[in-house]
Amino acid sequence: MKISHIEHLGIAVPSIEEALPYYENVLGLKCYNIETVEDQKVRTAFLKVGDTKIELLEPTSPESTIAKFLENKGPGVHHIAYAVSDGVANALAECEEKGIRLIDKAPRNGAEGLSIAFLHPKSTQGVLTELCED
Amino acid sequence: MKISHIEHLGIAVPSIEEALPYYENVLGLKCYNIETVEDQKVRTAFLKVGDTKIELLEPTSPESTIAKFLENKGPGVHHIAYAVSDGVANALAECEEKGIRLIDKAPRNGAEGLSIAFLHPKSTQGVLTELCED
Repeated sequence: MKISHIEHLGIAVPSIEEALPYYENVLGLKCYNIETVEDQKVRTAFLKVGDTKIELLEPTSPESTIAKFLENKGPGVHHIAYAVSDGVANALAECEEKGIRLIDKAPRNGAEGLSIAFLHPKSTQGVLTELCED
Repeated sequence: MKISHIEHLGIAVPSIEEALPYYENVLGLKCYNIETVEDQKVRTAFLKVGDTKIELLEPTSPESTIAKFLENKGPGVHHIAYAVSDGVANALAECEEKGIRLIDKAPRNGAEGLSIAFLHPKSTQGVLTELCED
């Protein structure tokens, strides 16, 4: 697998409106997009930082995996997304061959229209890990 | 505060030796340095990815804050470190003025000889946050 950079960091927050003043007014980052990903039951806010992004994740329903994460662990980093330059499908095939447990057996569409897939934290040293097309 | 990029992501692991094969053989990243930070009671392993780094953190004592983090939350992302280009002391002064709770009132030496300071997660939307000199 060829990873070029960290595409984004997903951070679970109870409320994007309450979180943004910290990211914008204290850290000085700029939110350039807010979108809802209906099938994931989340609202997302993106802020660019260097060659990566912060993706704030707010649950839109108590059934959202982000709502469950907030309940169990509290607000914090939910996942790391790596940009792979040789394709998400190739990277998944390589992971499977190496015994990594996959959440997504094939790439699917994520926020910002990227092709993405998740690896299971049981196989990734406890960090929920996303692979994104570069 | 002027943040140029994410300097590193601190990830708590029970064992660097057990974590490295995933990072090196599956993700294809390369560990370029392992060092012990005595006063933090941690061993750290660094891997470069794009303009940032992964810093694996292994406790060297049950009194280490990393040991306590692993006990409470399990392995996972422990902190985000932002590189500030206008100095850590200036950034701390700005944070304090804006009502952010500081863990370090003044910059101190961290891993890789960088000047660093931590902000309290109660003030940073649940994410333990480190500021580093650029």
